[in-house]
Amino acid sequence: MNKKTAMIVTLICGLLIATTVTAETKISPAPNGIEMPKDYKSWQILGVSHRTDKNSLRIILANSVAYKAASEGKTNVWPDGSMIAKLAWKDSTHPKFSSATVPGELAHVEFMIRDSKKFADTNGWGYARWLGLEQKAYGNDANFAQECSSCHEQAKETGYVFTRLAPLP
Amino acid sequence: MNKKTAMIVTLICGLLIATTVTAETKISPAPNGIEMPKDYKSWQILGVSHRTDKNSLRIILANSVAYKAASEGKTNVWPDGSMIAKLAWKDSTHPKFSSATVPGELAHVEFMIRDSKKFADTNGWGYARWLGLEQKAYGNDANFAQECSSCHEQAKETGYVFTRLAPLP
Repeated sequence: MNKKTAMIVTLICGLLIATTVTAETKISPAPNGIEMPKDYKSWQILGVSHRTDKNSLRIILANSVAYKAASEGKTNVWPDGSMIAKLAWKDSTHPKFSSATVPGELAHVEFMIRDSKKFADTNGWGYARWLGLEQKAYGNDANFAQECSSCHEQAKETGYVFTRLAPLP
Repeated sequence: MNKKTAMIVTLICGLLIATTVTAETKISPAPNGIEMPKDYKSWQILGVSHRTDKNSLRIILANSVAYKAASEGKTNVWPDGSMIAKLAWKDSTHPKFSSATVPGELAHVEFMIRDSKKFADTNGWGYARWLGLEQKAYGNDANFAQECSSCHEQAKETGYVFTRLAPLP
């Protein structure tokens, strides 16, 4: 292989790798344009819940801005930059422990992102949800967020967030 | 204040601060000598569960060694250095959402620490538990771990760990 051929091969390989990496990591944004925060799995624990109407188990995480606000009780209103993630799995029963409800398949990963100006129409919170392991963006158009926001009206006095900080030392 | 007096005052203040910090952070080890891992809140999510017999919600976290083993399905046997934390809260009902079971008071934080030689008597796992926000070490003497270990015998085929990795992308 001469120098020119080697360079072309290197270039093609580079492009192929770049395409593969992009294909693997690309998750469609929500219909309102929100991109999935990349680092949510490393956020801090805000809470946990079991929804008996939806038969699902949830872990709720907060980024550093939201965690600080929750720790200091400054949740009405939450500061801009707050981000909250909710990971929800369908209920399953532990095969060796019948009194333990444990995660079955992943239902969805969803987010609340605080930007009081950008998301003024939904009480200052941007909503986004991705379904299952395939991470399919939820909602046909940007109006899906009204569904989220109208339910969260019930939690108005805690800044439209249902989850309260789970006590930990 | 002359130079000598200032130095003495500085020294006393330093000692007072050091004593206060030590008093705040000191948690008694478990009766088998296990110290609480300091960084467990930053570990990765292994799972979540709702124990309907104990009426408690749990989040289960894994350190990097245990998380890697779980991700690769290498859990029989788990590698030495694996550490798993379980944070358990008593059930409570969300005041605005009756179908959501959420954390009430903290029941305990407990750990499994893998050292196949040191903890050979309990199938290679060291057990420790601290109760409530006061973090009181559980157990009257080192034998308390037999209680943990004998129950975990049921999970022998998954390396004595009940929790299976919750699916996440």
